[in-house]
Amino acid sequence: MSLMQPSASISSTSSAFLGQSTNNSRISKVSVPASAKKNEIFKCMATPPSDTTVYKTKVSRNANMAKLQAGYLFPEIARRKAAHMMKYPDAQVISLGIGDTTEPIPEVITSAMAQRSHALSTLEGYSGYGDGQGDKQLRAAIASAFYGKLGIEESDIFVSDGAKCDISRLQILLGSSVTMAVQDPSYPAYVDSSVIMGQTGQFQKDVEKYRNIEYMRCSPENGFFPNLSTVRPTDVIFFCSPNNPTGSAATREQLIRLVQFAKENGSIIVYDSAYAMYISDDRPRSIFEIPGAKEVAIETVSFSKYAGFTGVRLGWTVVPKELLFSDGFPVAKDFNRIVCTCFNGASNISQTGGLACLSPEGIKAMHDVVSFYKENTKIIMDTFNSLGFKVQGGEHAPYVWVHFPGRSSWDVFAEILEKIHLVTTPGSGFGPGGEGFIRVSAFGHRGNVLEACKRLKQLYN
Amino acid sequence: MSLMQPSASISSTSSAFLGQSTNNSRISKVSVPASAKKNEIFKCMATPPSDTTVYKTKVSRNANMAKLQAGYLFPEIARRKAAHMMKYPDAQVISLGIGDTTEPIPEVITSAMAQRSHALSTLEGYSGYGDGQGDKQLRAAIASAFYGKLGIEESDIFVSDGAKCDISRLQILLGSSVTMAVQDPSYPAYVDSSVIMGQTGQFQKDVEKYRNIEYMRCSPENGFFPNLSTVRPTDVIFFCSPNNPTGSAATREQLIRLVQFAKENGSIIVYDSAYAMYISDDRPRSIFEIPGAKEVAIETVSFSKYAGFTGVRLGWTVVPKELLFSDGFPVAKDFNRIVCTCFNGASNISQTGGLACLSPEGIKAMHDVVSFYKENTKIIMDTFNSLGFKVQGGEHAPYVWVHFPGRSSWDVFAEILEKIHLVTTPGSGFGPGGEGFIRVSAFGHRGNVLEACKRLKQLYN
Repeated sequence: MSLMQPSASISSTSSAFLGQSTNNSRISKVSVPASAKKNEIFKCMATPPSDTTVYKTKVSRNANMAKLQAGYLFPEIARRKAAHMMKYPDAQVISLGIGDTTEPIPEVITSAMAQRSHALSTLEGYSGYGDGQGDKQLRAAIASAFYGKLGIEESDIFVSDGAKCDISRLQILLGSSVTMAVQDPSYPAYVDSSVIMGQTGQFQKDVEKYRNIEYMRCSPENGFFPNLSTVRPTDVIFFCSPNNPTGSAATREQLIRLVQFAKENGSIIVYDSAYAMYISDDRPRSIFEIPGAKEVAIETVSFSKYAGFTGVRLGWTVVPKELLFSDGFPVAKDFNRIVCTCFNGASNISQTGGLACLSPEGIKAMHDVVSFYKENTKIIMDTFNSLGFKVQGGEHAPYVWVHFPGRSSWDVFAEILEKIHLVTTPGSGFGPGGEGFIRVSAFGHRGNVLEACKRLKQLYN
Repeated sequence: MSLMQPSASISSTSSAFLGQSTNNSRISKVSVPASAKKNEIFKCMATPPSDTTVYKTKVSRNANMAKLQAGYLFPEIARRKAAHMMKYPDAQVISLGIGDTTEPIPEVITSAMAQRSHALSTLEGYSGYGDGQGDKQLRAAIASAFYGKLGIEESDIFVSDGAKCDISRLQILLGSSVTMAVQDPSYPAYVDSSVIMGQTGQFQKDVEKYRNIEYMRCSPENGFFPNLSTVRPTDVIFFCSPNNPTGSAATREQLIRLVQFAKENGSIIVYDSAYAMYISDDRPRSIFEIPGAKEVAIETVSFSKYAGFTGVRLGWTVVPKELLFSDGFPVAKDFNRIVCTCFNGASNISQTGGLACLSPEGIKAMHDVVSFYKENTKIIMDTFNSLGFKVQGGEHAPYVWVHFPGRSSWDVFAEILEKIHLVTTPGSGFGPGGEGFIRVSAFGHRGNVLEACKRLKQLYN
C-alpha cells in the first residue's frame, strides 16, 4: 500500500501531509510584518488597518460588498449576546432570538442518517458525487408529499443545502440587471444578497433603504399584506409567507392577487414558504396552489423548521418548467446550470435524512415538532396579550411580532436583554418597516419559554 | 400536542401538509397549456420551446448565463455515459471519467458521523445553526493538521461544503469587475463561474476561449507550468496544483515565481490544492509554504479526494488576514460576510466527519485511501507507457493525462467509450489547451482499473 508514498517521512501521522516536516526550516523563515498581525479576531463589521506600510494587492474591493451597511443581522445578535454574557457571566441568558431550532430531531430521521453514515464505509453502501439537483428518490418524495396534486414534478425540484443558500443561487441566476421588490419587513438575506449581486444602489441612511429596491410595506394598517396598487413593478418579487418576521400568512385571495400582479407586470415571484407547515387553517401552503402560479413563481422551502435541520442543512427549490424568461428560455434550465456549476448537491447523509422525513413516520414526527413549537408560540402570544401589547403573527408561524409604538427596536432589544437576560430580535433588523417591533421566536425548550414569559411579565407588568 | 393543529384534517399523515386535501377541488382546476408540458426532462443544453403562445415573463434572461457554451462538463459526460448504457444495455461500462471517488469511507470517520447523527436526537447532543465559518474545533484542527508551522490560524479557515461551492462564493466575493487568469487546461468551474459572474466577454468560437480571460497555456513544452513572462497581468489568478486535469504539481521554485509574479502585479492567487495529499515528493502541499504568499493568496481545499467525501460534502478555504484589497480592506472580512449571508455552514454531521478525519487514526486512514488511488494511478500510467503513449501527471495526482497528438479529444473519448465501454474525460473539456488529450481518473475499484487497462491494451496494442 505504501508504494507511492515518500518513505522518508512515512512515520508521521500527526500531520495530514507526509513529508511536510522536511520543509520546516524553510517555512519558519516566512516573515510577516508585525503590523499585519493586528487583526486576530474576525468581526463582521470592521475598519481597515490604519498602518499604511502593509502590503496591499491592487485588486479593488467589490463595490457591492462595500454597500452593505452592517454585519448580517443574526451574527450581529450573536455578537451582542456573547458580549452580554461576558458582562453577566452568572446570568441565565435565554435566547428567543435568531430562530434556531432547539428540539432533538425525531429518531426515525436520525436513525436513517446514522445508517447511511455506516453504509458509506461499505462497498455496497458507498456513494460519491450525487446529482447536483439532488437524489431522484428524494426529489420524487418531495414532489409527492408537498405538491401531490399541484402538478409539480420531480424534475421541477432542486434539492439544496437550505433556503438561504438557494436564495443566493437564485440571485446568481437572475444576475445584476434585475430589479427586485421585498416585503418590508423581511428576512434580511433577500436584500443583502441582492446588494451583493449588484442589483441595488447605495444605502440611503435617511430612509434606511437601498436605492433601486422596492420595499413593500407590511404593517398592522394593511394586515401585513402590501398594497399592490402602490407597488412599483419589478422583475423579481421576494415574498415570504408565513412571513418571517411578522408571522402573518397570506390568504388564498391575497395570493391570487399577488400572482395576478406578477402576471400583469411579467414579474417572477420568489416565494419563500419555509414555515408553511405552521399554518393553522386552510390558507395555501404553496404558491402553486394558486392557478397560474407555475408560470410566474419559484418556491423555496427548507427542512430546517420542520425537522430541526438547521444544522443538518437541507431544503429545496421548485422551479417549474412552465416559468420562462422573456425570450422563452426556461428559468429551470438556467437554474439547473447554476446548481451543476456552483453547487455539488446537499450532503448525501442529509438527503437520507430528508427521505426519512417524508416517510409516514417522519411526516408524523415533523408534525409533532411543529406542534411543539406552535404551543410555545401560543404561550408567548398569551403572555404579551395579557400584558396589553399589540401582538401580530403567531397563529401560522413560530414568530411573535410585538409592537412597541414609538420606541426604537434596538432600544427595546437592549432593554429586554439587559433587564431580563432575554435575547429577542429587533424588528428594524428586517427593514425600516420593522422599526418599533421586536420578533420573539418560539424556538426554545418549553422551560425556557415559560421562564422567559415569567420574566417578561415581571418586566412589563 | 395537537392544540394548534386544524382538527378537521389531522388524520392524514401521507401529506406533509395537514389540511391540504381540503383544497384539492380548487387545485385540480389549475390549467397548464399543453404546449408548456413538452420539456419533461432536463438537459443541461436546451433550446427554448418553439411554441410562442405560452406565457412568458418580462424578465430578461441573465446575459451571462447565455454566454455559457454547453452543459457543465461532468453532467455532460454522465449524460453520454447514460446514452451509451441505453445503447449497450449488457455492456460492463467502467467509469474512469468524472473523478468520483469509489472506495468506502474509513470506518473511524463514518462511525463518528453515525454517532453525531444519533446524538442529534438527544437533548444534550442536539445542535442547530452552526457558525457560517464552521465549527471552531474543526477550524482549529484543520489549521493544526495542514498548516501547523505556516502561521495560518483557526480564524483564517472557512469550512465549506466543498471546493466547487467555495469557488463560486469566491467569485461572488470578487464581483464582476475583476479580470482573471486560469491555467489552460483547468478544472472548468473556474471559467464557468467567472462567466456566470459577468467577468468575461463572449465565447470566441475560433479560439475556444472566453474574451477577457487570460488562458495560461500549460503543455508538455513548458512542463505544464505557464510561461509567466507572456501572461497578461490580471486581478485574480486561479491556479490548481497538483493540477486537475494534467496531474502536474508545481515545484517550490515555480511557486516562488508564481507568488512573485502575483506580488509584482498586485494580483490575488486562488490556489486550489484539493489533491495536495497525492504529492509524492517534497513539493509544497500548500501555497502558504511560499514566503509572502499570505499577502497574495487564498487556498481552497477539500476532503473529497482524501476521505471519499465527494457525496458527504466538506472542504475549506483559507483567506489569510494578511490579504488586503487595494484600499487596505481585508479580503477575509468580506469573505466572512459572504459565508454569513450566502451560506449557513456545512452540515454538522459532515463537520463531525471532518474532525474524525483529522484524528491520528483518521489521518492514517486518509493516507491509506490516497495510497490506494495512487496505486491505481501507477497501474494506469504503466499501461499507457507500455503502449507507447506520452503520459503526463500521475505521480502527484490521481489523474493520468494521455496525449493523442493530432486527434480530437471528444473523438478519442467516443472511440474508447464505443469500443471498450470505458468512460474517460476529453481533455478539451478543460479548455483549448486540453485538445488532443484525455484524462483518465484513478478513482475506481482495483478490479475495474485492471479490467480497464486490459481493455486499453487490447484496443491500442
